[in-house]
Amino acid sequence: MAEPLFDKITLIGIGLIGSSIARDVKALGLARDVTISTRSADTLKRARELDLGTGYTLAAEEAVTDADLVIVSVPVGASEAVAKQIAPHLKAGAIVTDVGSTKASVIAQMAPHMPSNVHFIPGHPLAGTEKSGPDAGFRGLFKGRWCIFTPLADTDPDALGRLRSFWEALGSKIDEMDPEHHDKVLAIVSHLPHIIAYNIVGTADDLETVTESEVIKYSASGFRDFTRLAASDPTMWRDVCLHNKDALLEMLARFSEDLAYLQRAIRWGEGDKLFELFSRTRSIRRSIVEAGQDVDTPDFGRHVLDTPES
Amino acid sequence: MAEPLFDKITLIGIGLIGSSIARDVKALGLARDVTISTRSADTLKRARELDLGTGYTLAAEEAVTDADLVIVSVPVGASEAVAKQIAPHLKAGAIVTDVGSTKASVIAQMAPHMPSNVHFIPGHPLAGTEKSGPDAGFRGLFKGRWCIFTPLADTDPDALGRLRSFWEALGSKIDEMDPEHHDKVLAIVSHLPHIIAYNIVGTADDLETVTESEVIKYSASGFRDFTRLAASDPTMWRDVCLHNKDALLEMLARFSEDLAYLQRAIRWGEGDKLFELFSRTRSIRRSIVEAGQDVDTPDFGRHVLDTPES
Repeated sequence: MAEPLFDKITLIGIGLIGSSIARDVKALGLARDVTISTRSADTLKRARELDLGTGYTLAAEEAVTDADLVIVSVPVGASEAVAKQIAPHLKAGAIVTDVGSTKASVIAQMAPHMPSNVHFIPGHPLAGTEKSGPDAGFRGLFKGRWCIFTPLADTDPDALGRLRSFWEALGSKIDEMDPEHHDKVLAIVSHLPHIIAYNIVGTADDLETVTESEVIKYSASGFRDFTRLAASDPTMWRDVCLHNKDALLEMLARFSEDLAYLQRAIRWGEGDKLFELFSRTRSIRRSIVEAGQDVDTPDFGRHVLDTPES
Repeated sequence: MAEPLFDKITLIGIGLIGSSIARDVKALGLARDVTISTRSADTLKRARELDLGTGYTLAAEEAVTDADLVIVSVPVGASEAVAKQIAPHLKAGAIVTDVGSTKASVIAQMAPHMPSNVHFIPGHPLAGTEKSGPDAGFRGLFKGRWCIFTPLADTDPDALGRLRSFWEALGSKIDEMDPEHHDKVLAIVSHLPHIIAYNIVGTADDLETVTESEVIKYSASGFRDFTRLAASDPTMWRDVCLHNKDALLEMLARFSEDLAYLQRAIRWGEGDKLFELFSRTRSIRRSIVEAGQDVDTPDFGRHVLDTPES
């Protein structure tokens, strides 16, 4: 066990991300007290059953009392309500951070409510799976993954250093950038892929000429890859769409323009244009694997796990 | 070892699919003689080094002599050239099949050239990975996967039964449908997903505001899922696009229409429309997992294989 980095950590929200943090904090001994707060009585009960913390309450304002580090892990659309609720009860010198997938909107929602004697440092760990809820979390979710801080101009370097140490203890690699750039980067690497995945699964579900049972039965020929992202938490992703609107609309416009070009090439039989694109994209996959950001095993290694009946 | 189903099997094309068939045939003892033919001298040399067959030749017309079963595994655009080349040399009573991802086009290209004393049975095993070439094949690729036949009206039931036994020996489950329906089904479960994946990877690669190195670095937040399909064989996929044009254009139109609806909902902040879709798609994922068509492990089980440095 390491020396605790904080006396008391409060987790507001205990879904996939919050509960993964809780599991790591406990296993690594990063705090003496871990208080968990969430709006749903059922979820709080489940967190208690899973023994994720040392204290549990439905009242966020009680939960943050005396906390040295408060981590807000809620759908980004709930950020302002949480900020208003906890602000009057925060301890002087406390660090408040979040894990939201959009940063400009979270800052606009939370920063105005934060007392001047509190360190508000927006953050975003790029980690997760398609599962949600306190049961979905697991030890090591953040290991080897990036955590991006988008600190405000007047951020205290010491507080930033302590938050950095916390995420590094969870195994994360840290980057810093301004919130607008974060939102553009995430729009292309995360938000657009999710929208596209949701969309294609919806399209397939709505066809008259191909039945849903055929789509399911033959999904291994490509379609199933999209269904994983499209199984992500609906509330979280609704909020992401509404709170990163500008960057997402820009990426959607680029995507649709490129798709129209491909569609035209298919219509007019321009095989050279198709071949050029299909060759170029191969090298990006190679770079991602070389950068250690995906496994190289064919088919994501599914056949290693998969033992279909013959 | 089972009793061989055929005296001589000839494989035209020895990429991912052809070489996986070869490995299974050999291991299961399904033929006394396995002759391999491919257009590229380098690929043929590699097939010989891998000891995939019992005979090797660059001349397809020689390869098919005396063959009881000929399996054509080439990009679908090459089907007619192969049919013309082998037709005069086929043995009376031989079965000729293919593995192409489009069926109406393959039938139009091959059927007119087939001698009347030969059984031409179009087929499509729904199996593969993003890798290509003779080294990419492996034992058991077809196990538990569907193989779809699209037999012509006058197909001999006995020949069909023998071809069915062959694929069943490789572990496949067999379905039959007409070629037009096959092409529509595959357009949505396979061809559209590949086009969309290629397209989004191209869009990301072309941005000015986000660098390629940022896309690679942060790809684990969703984007990397698409890069697997976008790393598939460019020649194969160019041909699929050109040879399933009508069905693919129809699916592209539906997809774009649905995406415009989502885009408008994002622009106007209509969270209820987004939430409705994002909830509906979750249940399709669940059905696919229940049907045994994908693993249920979060993130495709990547974290089982993946051990990123901390």
